[in-house]
Formats: sequence, structure tokens, C-alpha cells
Amino acid sequence: MKQSPQKMETPRTVNGVKVDELFGTIDAVKKAPVIAKFKFRANNQWIDGGHNRTTVKNFYGTQHDHDHKEPFVLDADEPPLLLGRDLGPNPVEYALTALAACVTSSIVYHAAAKGVVIRSMESRLEGDIDLQGFLGIKDDVPRGYQEIRMYVNIDADAPPEKLEEIVRLGPTYSPVFDTITRAVPVTVQLDK
Amino acid sequence: MKQSPQKMETPRTVNGVKVDELFGTIDAVKKAPVIAKFKFRANNQWIDGGHNRTTVKNFYGTQHDHDHKEPFVLDADEPPLLLGRDLGPNPVEYALTALAACVTSSIVYHAAAKGVVIRSMESRLEGDIDLQGFLGIKDDVPRGYQEIRMYVNIDADAPPEKLEEIVRLGPTYSPVFDTITRAVPVTVQLDK
Repeated sequence: MKQSPQKMETPRTVNGVKVDELFGTIDAVKKAPVIAKFKFRANNQWIDGGHNRTTVKNFYGTQHDHDHKEPFVLDADEPPLLLGRDLGPNPVEYALTALAACVTSSIVYHAAAKGVVIRSMESRLEGDIDLQGFLGIKDDVPRGYQEIRMYVNIDADAPPEKLEEIVRLGPTYSPVFDTITRAVPVTVQLDK
Repeated sequence: MKQSPQKMETPRTVNGVKVDELFGTIDAVKKAPVIAKFKFRANNQWIDGGHNRTTVKNFYGTQHDHDHKEPFVLDADEPPLLLGRDLGPNPVEYALTALAACVTSSIVYHAAAKGVVIRSMESRLEGDIDLQGFLGIKDDVPRGYQEIRMYVNIDADAPPEKLEEIVRLGPTYSPVFDTITRAVPVTVQLDK
């Protein structure tokens, strides 16, 4: 964009998102779609019983590997009721965390792209699991979530009747929402 | 199991899992399936840009609410390449964490029930995402993972040809594996 030498342009930030960079990324991807191919990664080490530890160190994108500033270390465990020692959230609580974070960020980024200012946002999630599935008692009971519900409280610079539209940006664009609702192929195999 | 009064029976623990309690749970659920109905929960607060915070405090099961020993607090953010400040794993990395932890625990618990001792287990995961989906550039590109691969290194008290069978306990019983591969209904709505 041209600018007069007298007037410096301030980079626009909406909802904490640098929207000029966001539009720059979109333009760059349109020109070279290969840079949009990402690979996300995690390593897990079993410790004892329901306790295990995931480390997230790096990912691939824009045709390069990228390290996180520091590795993120995430302990999972089960509560005593599920025979663990409660040393971390359990795996299905991590799944809700992934969903909550992703729907939230998707609303924030896409609202920013539309110039909609969000002042605050909170949400609560609940998902139903019948343990007869995991325990192998009934084969017709799913092992995982039967349903997940997310309720969003949002204060945004938009008339009340527009708020539903803003919240809908979450399920429309969220990668984790899509991953959970679409049936993604997952292979689990011995590391040869 | 009968025991002589001279000899106290030691509770059996395999892979850190109290297997007598595990079988006790299975028997209890068979008698009263309602106790197997669980509700897992999470709350999320948006902070700024891609940074938000999930808190996991309690869950419902065996017809009661249960508090975790302490609330678990999980920050999510995006790396600078995705316009964040790298203050935590991003949402799709949390999804891999959930999957890694769940497949691992499912192998550990079900191997314990079969009396198979696991000495160590590690895994690495990788999943592919094409950001053209999230960015709304191409509607036929999925927003979420196109495929996820998990590679498991396991040292167990079993002959090599049995290791694949043990690893397969993960995808067979894991709630998060099922949640990602089955297409779970998720509703996202305004909190009224």
C-alpha cells in the first residue's frame, strides 16, 4: 500500500491479531499454496498407569521446520475414580481443551479479519461419555464422546442479533471442530 | 479368590493399574450401567489474539460431581508464524496431545487387564493440515487434520509377534481415537 512520507501507517491490530499480516498470509498462500501445508507433531512418553507426558517441540510449515520457543510439556493422568493419581487432565479433557481453544481462536481471528472488535469471550464445554464403551462391556456403546456442547459468552462490538453470526465463525473455520466432527483417518502402528 | 487366613492377598497392580479395582469397576458397571455415564467439562477464557486459557476443574460420573485435586490450567497460543506469541501449544497440538495420551492409556489399561506387563512405551505423532481450509481460501480443503499418524515404540513382556496386537488395543478402546475418527456431533452456541 502506498503511503505519503509524512504519514506513517500504523499496523492494524484487531483482537490482538495483526490483521495486515493475516491478509498478507492469505495473499502469500493464494500465490503459493504449498506454504499452507503444515505438519503438527507431538511425542509421548508413558510414565506409569494413566500417567503419561506429551512434549510438543516443533512443526513444519511454509516448507520449513520451526521450533517452538521452548518445548511444551503436558502431563495427562486419570483421577482416582478412574484408577489414576490425578497428576494432570485426562485425555478426553485434553480433547475438550483443544476444541475450546480452537473454536475461540477461530472466532477471534475471523472476527478480526472482518474488523469486528471482541471485548471479552468465555465459554464452557461439556461432553458425554459412557464408560461401558471403553471398558469393553457393550460393543454398541461408542468409546468416545457421544455429544459435545459448547456455550459461548461473548461481548463484541456488534448488535446482539449479530452475535450468533460471530460465534458461528468458530464451527465454520475451527480445525479442531472439523477434526472432531468429520471423521479423520488416524493410523496407529508399531514404530519399525 | 480364596485365601488362607495365614496369607494376606496383595492387591495386584500391573503397569501401575490396580487391576482388581479395574475388574471391580467392570462388575459394578455391569450391575448398574448408569454409573458409567460420565460428563467431562472445561471452561475457556480468551486472553488476547491466539492466546486463551482452559481450566479443567470437575467432572460427573458414578452419579456425582467430582472435583480434581486442583484445577488444571492450560494455556493455548499460536507460534509467531501463525500470528501468536507462542505462549502455549496451539489447539491442534492439544488435539494430538489428547490422542497420544488416550491411545497410550488405553493400551496400558487393557494390557494390564490381560496381565501383559509393559516395561516402556513411547510414541510420536504427526498430522497434516492445509491452512487453505482455515483461511477460507478453498472450501474443498478440510479445516482440520487430513490424516494423523501415530508410531508406537513399546517394550512389553510379550513375544515380538504379539506387540502389534497390544498396540491395537489403543485404537480399539481409546475414547479420543474414537472421537476423532467417528464424527462426533458438536454444538457451539451463545450462552443464554
